[in-house]
Amino acid sequence: MPMQEIHYDQYFAQVMRVMASRGLFLTSQTRDGRVNSMIMGWGMIGSVWGRPVWTILVRPSRYTYGLIEQMGDFTISVPGPDLEKACRICGSKSGRDHDKLAEAGLRTVHAKKVQSPVIADCIIHYECRVLHKSDLEPTALIQSIVAGSYPSGDFHRTYWGEIAAAYADTDRLNELKV
Amino acid sequence: MPMQEIHYDQYFAQVMRVMASRGLFLTSQTRDGRVNSMIMGWGMIGSVWGRPVWTILVRPSRYTYGLIEQMGDFTISVPGPDLEKACRICGSKSGRDHDKLAEAGLRTVHAKKVQSPVIADCIIHYECRVLHKSDLEPTALIQSIVAGSYPSGDFHRTYWGEIAAAYADTDRLNELKV
Repeated sequence: MPMQEIHYDQYFAQVMRVMASRGLFLTSQTRDGRVNSMIMGWGMIGSVWGRPVWTILVRPSRYTYGLIEQMGDFTISVPGPDLEKACRICGSKSGRDHDKLAEAGLRTVHAKKVQSPVIADCIIHYECRVLHKSDLEPTALIQSIVAGSYPSGDFHRTYWGEIAAAYADTDRLNELKV
Repeated sequence: MPMQEIHYDQYFAQVMRVMASRGLFLTSQTRDGRVNSMIMGWGMIGSVWGRPVWTILVRPSRYTYGLIEQMGDFTISVPGPDLEKACRICGSKSGRDHDKLAEAGLRTVHAKKVQSPVIADCIIHYECRVLHKSDLEPTALIQSIVAGSYPSGDFHRTYWGEIAAAYADTDRLNELKV
């Protein structure tokens, strides 16, 4: 795993395409180190307050929500096509009653800057520390999105995570096609 | 101006670097067509609700705030180094008491999908329609950011704009160095 540091804005198109297809691993853990990973399909990268930021959206009903609330950090790992099946497993079960990582055959690796680990064998990793959180404002969201994405409420909370570290397995970047 | 349609996730690194140096033009207009452009240094691009999104931050004290509130759309134009001086002018005056575009020698071009125009002679343009807006939550923002960026309050409102069109002067992309 010859990981190389990358700038937060590199490989963006590749990351967005993976996010829109198999999804990205969003990993967090409990205070006593029990790790969970969900699949995220939506998110944004940019620069805010002069800092590189990943903004993610998590519904209050998700197991991940309580974990990030408690711990204040998370990681995002970008899987190659070899982890397609593991993505489906992590994307279809809840960490409340499943050890998803074990069921998906995934291993974790310690992060460099945050407490939550990253998912082994992924191609790009981001380690993020929560700078800010705020809830979507249902009355200020266009009606078609409310109807399409929130038929039963459960409006997302947004977590704005400073990208404390970003690195890639540069030998495998060609697996992330654009 | 041989503009070519681009995918929302292309040239991201270039756009982020320009945003962090001379800034990007954030353009909006009044109901009766008076155009204003401010310089933005912070923002995020991504995919949310299955749509390409630019999320921008505007302080309530800004002239632009009232314009986007009224009109519900905005454009973002990425300037080359030739517009450095125009950026400084637009970044240092308020559209409330200045016709900044005239003072900066800038022209506008009709947008394809939204009412707000784009700034002529820029290299990349995004046309955005507001899908959602929400305010930063001061109590859920780390203290060093509150102290550093909001000493007098005036916390940003975030506008989540669907990227309805994105296009570039592909002959000039080499002017946006990474």
